[in-house]
Amino acid sequence: MVVHTAPATPATPAARPRRDLGSAPFLVAARGGRPQRLPVWFMRQAGRSLPEYRALRSGTGMLQACLTPELTTEITLQPVRRHGVDAAILFSDIVVPLFAAGVGVDIVAGTGPVVAEPVRTAADVARLPELTEDHVTPVTDAITLLLGELGDTPLIGFAGAPFTLASYLIEGGPSRNHERTKALMRSAPDVWHALLGRLADMTSTFLRAQIAAGVDAVQLFDSWAGALSLRDYRTYVLPHSARVLAAITEVPRIHFGVGTGELLGAMAEAGADVVGVDWRIPLDDAARRAGGTRPVQGNLDPAVLFADPGSVEAEVVRIAAEGRRAPGHVFNLGHGVLPDTDPDVLTRLVDLVHRQPV
Amino acid sequence: MVVHTAPATPATPAARPRRDLGSAPFLVAARGGRPQRLPVWFMRQAGRSLPEYRALRSGTGMLQACLTPELTTEITLQPVRRHGVDAAILFSDIVVPLFAAGVGVDIVAGTGPVVAEPVRTAADVARLPELTEDHVTPVTDAITLLLGELGDTPLIGFAGAPFTLASYLIEGGPSRNHERTKALMRSAPDVWHALLGRLADMTSTFLRAQIAAGVDAVQLFDSWAGALSLRDYRTYVLPHSARVLAAITEVPRIHFGVGTGELLGAMAEAGADVVGVDWRIPLDDAARRAGGTRPVQGNLDPAVLFADPGSVEAEVVRIAAEGRRAPGHVFNLGHGVLPDTDPDVLTRLVDLVHRQPV
Repeated sequence: MVVHTAPATPATPAARPRRDLGSAPFLVAARGGRPQRLPVWFMRQAGRSLPEYRALRSGTGMLQACLTPELTTEITLQPVRRHGVDAAILFSDIVVPLFAAGVGVDIVAGTGPVVAEPVRTAADVARLPELTEDHVTPVTDAITLLLGELGDTPLIGFAGAPFTLASYLIEGGPSRNHERTKALMRSAPDVWHALLGRLADMTSTFLRAQIAAGVDAVQLFDSWAGALSLRDYRTYVLPHSARVLAAITEVPRIHFGVGTGELLGAMAEAGADVVGVDWRIPLDDAARRAGGTRPVQGNLDPAVLFADPGSVEAEVVRIAAEGRRAPGHVFNLGHGVLPDTDPDVLTRLVDLVHRQPV
Repeated sequence: MVVHTAPATPATPAARPRRDLGSAPFLVAARGGRPQRLPVWFMRQAGRSLPEYRALRSGTGMLQACLTPELTTEITLQPVRRHGVDAAILFSDIVVPLFAAGVGVDIVAGTGPVVAEPVRTAADVARLPELTEDHVTPVTDAITLLLGELGDTPLIGFAGAPFTLASYLIEGGPSRNHERTKALMRSAPDVWHALLGRLADMTSTFLRAQIAAGVDAVQLFDSWAGALSLRDYRTYVLPHSARVLAAITEVPRIHFGVGTGELLGAMAEAGADVVGVDWRIPLDDAARRAGGTRPVQGNLDPAVLFADPGSVEAEVVRIAAEGRRAPGHVFNLGHGVLPDTDPDVLTRLVDLVHRQPV
């Protein structure tokens, strides 16, 4: 079993001078300071809940939208304009770096990513292309455009974590049970760690290109990590996510997965500056599990947005209070915005969060 | 908000004399005693992993199979014969009592249960039919047949818990996010608790009919409880599951849900004699969370059965050791058998479990 522990060192492009957004509430909170107001943004704020998004995407594939700078820019800006959130999140998809590098993957409506040739052997891993900065020029071009439009709103970069990417590659698409993934990690740990190492390199290259282009923070999104026990997470996943995160020193790093209450300490150890939390545990408890020193991000159940306004408000008040008992709080949902969410509810939610004491 | 706290008291049919299986390893372990060997059975052991099941089900709908006594009996017996497990689990489906009572629900291949008219208002709840013992005569007839065939192998009865049934009824089918369910519980708590009360009555009637027919234990299966925070579980779900479980005193009660590491204490409080645990946390930790006095059931990740034999053995040895540090252990998977599981792997797993020290 070979686990690379040194930070990934992809070619680092010449970086643009970073914007000075020192007093932006999101960045203050993400760095553990006390912001002027409780900052809020939403995972998947750019996307299907917005009619202007659905209109813009009409006839355009997901990956095409992620790799056309003007489209990516407009989609990323839509929720900032509409809701007045405290951060923009780069519109992207977890498989974008794979596709950009030349892996045969498409996003099929109603299914999700579908991989033409699943990766299950050492030879499959060896055949994986490398990702270079040139492959993601459309993304970095979008970032350049966004920085010109966003004013003093921070821009968060985005990448899927190696484990989540590996699951798509091994299963050939979305999987409820990850059986092939979990079988490979145990039955062929050398193949597993070689694959995760390659994916850590790709993720690192992708995030470093975004940072060089000027994003103000990054979120590493390990969608499926919650399917693992702590023991397996530590053995098979943590070293690779840690290698990705160790290479990032310029901007705050948010590390998030769903159903990861048992993993928060390990995900924090992997290198997070901010630990994302789903709705299953209170934020103050989550902050303790994550080591007691890091700001947390979360954690309104996105399903609550389908309830009456009084119920939403009660949850916001509770979560803000729990967040005040943590070493810092960025308000967010506990998972992405659900497609049927009423966007007006999101707009009112931003206002409600901003009226909470900090 | 009206929460009934008294035990449900459905009409109790005249009970058959209970079999004396006092030394059956499963029952000894479930009652907190020390069995002669580590008992093992598998959730979904009867089902799609077995070629003889697929042959028998060919051309027969799921609900028809659950309500045809000879078919139910044969399907229930198949894994007992093939694997030599220490308990049979009644072949059934979570929606069987709904269907039997006359609710318009069908199980659609590839989708799951589909409810013709979702239940979302007080009037919808009022229209729900009651379940009587007569409605489930095919199930109790199957139990009678099974008791004649099973020799000294215990038979476990089965029902879905009120929350999981409610999610199917409210959403109209399987749901990843349960947004309508979670919205209803907050926006209309009176409707919610009326619905859960009705479902607790149905579940109770269904389980009591199974007990009267002679099952040796029951498992209350709350598939989706892990989608809830502890706070919401306690407020909206626990009182109703507790009412179902309080009405059962004759046989050991197993209470299980997936992803319920945060809920084990509450699920134990709801009335479990044995607490089922998925693969995410070690059994000794789970037993502590469940109050420190109850046997636990679990918790091999069903995906591990797709790995090499050495990996399976290593996991079994670890889990058996963790189980020995709990107040009792019934070996099982951490969730149901996955459809693509090799049945020979399950047979070898039973043998391997039986060779573990107790």
